[in-house]
Amino acid sequence: MATKDYVLSLVERAERGDRRALGRLLTILEDVSSETAWVLEYLAGRSRGAHVIGVTGIPGSGKSSLISRMIRVLRDKGYRVAVITIDPTSPLSSGAILGDRLRMQEHATDPGVFIRSVTTAGALGGLSLSALAMIEAFDALGYDKVIVETVGVGQSETHVMHAADTIVVVTMPGAGDDVQALKAGVLEIGDIYVVNKSDKPEASKTYEYMLFVAEKGEIGRSGAWKPVVVKTSSTLGMGIRELVEAVEKHLEYLRNSGEKLSRLSSRRRLLVKLLAEKIVLDLLDKVAEEELAKTHEGLEGFYKRAIEIARTTGEKLLNLKIQ
Amino acid sequence: MATKDYVLSLVERAERGDRRALGRLLTILEDVSSETAWVLEYLAGRSRGAHVIGVTGIPGSGKSSLISRMIRVLRDKGYRVAVITIDPTSPLSSGAILGDRLRMQEHATDPGVFIRSVTTAGALGGLSLSALAMIEAFDALGYDKVIVETVGVGQSETHVMHAADTIVVVTMPGAGDDVQALKAGVLEIGDIYVVNKSDKPEASKTYEYMLFVAEKGEIGRSGAWKPVVVKTSSTLGMGIRELVEAVEKHLEYLRNSGEKLSRLSSRRRLLVKLLAEKIVLDLLDKVAEEELAKTHEGLEGFYKRAIEIARTTGEKLLNLKIQ
Repeated sequence: MATKDYVLSLVERAERGDRRALGRLLTILEDVSSETAWVLEYLAGRSRGAHVIGVTGIPGSGKSSLISRMIRVLRDKGYRVAVITIDPTSPLSSGAILGDRLRMQEHATDPGVFIRSVTTAGALGGLSLSALAMIEAFDALGYDKVIVETVGVGQSETHVMHAADTIVVVTMPGAGDDVQALKAGVLEIGDIYVVNKSDKPEASKTYEYMLFVAEKGEIGRSGAWKPVVVKTSSTLGMGIRELVEAVEKHLEYLRNSGEKLSRLSSRRRLLVKLLAEKIVLDLLDKVAEEELAKTHEGLEGFYKRAIEIARTTGEKLLNLKIQ
Repeated sequence: MATKDYVLSLVERAERGDRRALGRLLTILEDVSSETAWVLEYLAGRSRGAHVIGVTGIPGSGKSSLISRMIRVLRDKGYRVAVITIDPTSPLSSGAILGDRLRMQEHATDPGVFIRSVTTAGALGGLSLSALAMIEAFDALGYDKVIVETVGVGQSETHVMHAADTIVVVTMPGAGDDVQALKAGVLEIGDIYVVNKSDKPEASKTYEYMLFVAEKGEIGRSGAWKPVVVKTSSTLGMGIRELVEAVEKHLEYLRNSGEKLSRLSSRRRLLVKLLAEKIVLDLLDKVAEEELAKTHEGLEGFYKRAIEIARTTGEKLLNLKIQ
């Protein structure tokens, strides 16, 4: 187990630019437990107000290449950029994700860029907690922009998306039915909508459609911000500057309206809840293992045994000490 | 909330073949809570030893069509068949899943077949619990075969797969890299491996490869059962009878070796644990909502507040009553 001194030394070294120390710190945060939860408090106390940008959208819309292009523009503006890629899928699709990561490889040697993926290696539902914990670390360590990329399936990402300051939803020409499907999903949470691959012939039709639904107020979060639609081509590098400008404008809006603070607050509240869940489930896991090892049958009385496990977990929770 | 009398009347009506009552019962089980958990105990007490068949594999391998074909053969043998489709994805991919369900539509009017999907409408991690609860219902109601189909991504399905008596892993010709990726994922859990779409030219190469790794013991669960490889084409209806024979042979093996009972036992133990988790998380959810509503800031002290939420949940757990 990571001692307090060791974790603090990692933070210190990471602050001085030691990437390996940062990597280790992130590994601890990826599987934060009741023993290491204090570090979140510590990091949050050092928050420098990073801008958290969520990027989501339909599979195949070229999110990773787009982010890679965005990083270049953000770096030109002098920002330090962190990317957290959330992958809730099994090893089945690891090939695809690996490809995505390679697409961002061009920034591997840039000391102002740090890319990290979070996979389902941890507990269920733990993906969101891991990502939120990493956001706190990057924020404390002075990264100006923290981009959270999700592959766009599952519930945990929706979670994280809601925790972002600015949400970019990526779609592409000819997505047709997909765009309709999107409406039921992420279309309502975006601040900025990107029609990527806009070098394709059907691009303007999709773009017009997005503008139309944006105008009608059918997409976007509620609030004073009117969603922006941007055409890009990550292959040709087109529209990237416009996209970054829109992202910056949204940050300005958040700051002026006071929403930046309220988004930080809801992100922290989500973190509190997920952390509490993690603490409780970790305990329950141990209790269940002990309880279920007692009998090997498990063929009857299991409802009572579930309640018993829940109660024993309750008892242990009362003895929980703050580190 | 569903009263005890109401739930019992649903079970009774479902037993007499009332499909609408069965549908309602499944809806209750999909979101089982501490109030309705007793029904699981009740259903489990009426278990008739259904054969639970898990079907998993790479996306696009034609699992749904294959299952549809299998149902026909199983029906010819006089079995009653239930299908549970697990869909851990967001609305983003609902189109695809809808298509899958349509593929099984041909059985919609057969009173001996019941098809139900479970989506992420419920809580995170709740997918497995919903599926396990539904298995208990179908088992108690006399379905001989309960097929659990997963779209093949995410952790929750791996969970459910481990709870099946017989696991069928579906791949297809030319999957190449995917097969390699599969090795890291589900290839080690299969009892029967299917090379579907075997009308395609590269089919025999993939088939030979699967036979080779099966022979070498590189795939399949540990135990005395030697994994079987079957070539099928769900489009042409080829190899389906052979697949069903392999599934039946595996059941015979499970019965003779005593493994049928031990798999039931581990399925029930998983159910106990997931049920306990659900009970605890439901409580935590309420506690967190109350706690987090108290302050709207959430900018400091959140580590202590997480512990506080966990403790309060613990207190409430001690007051839990068995219904």
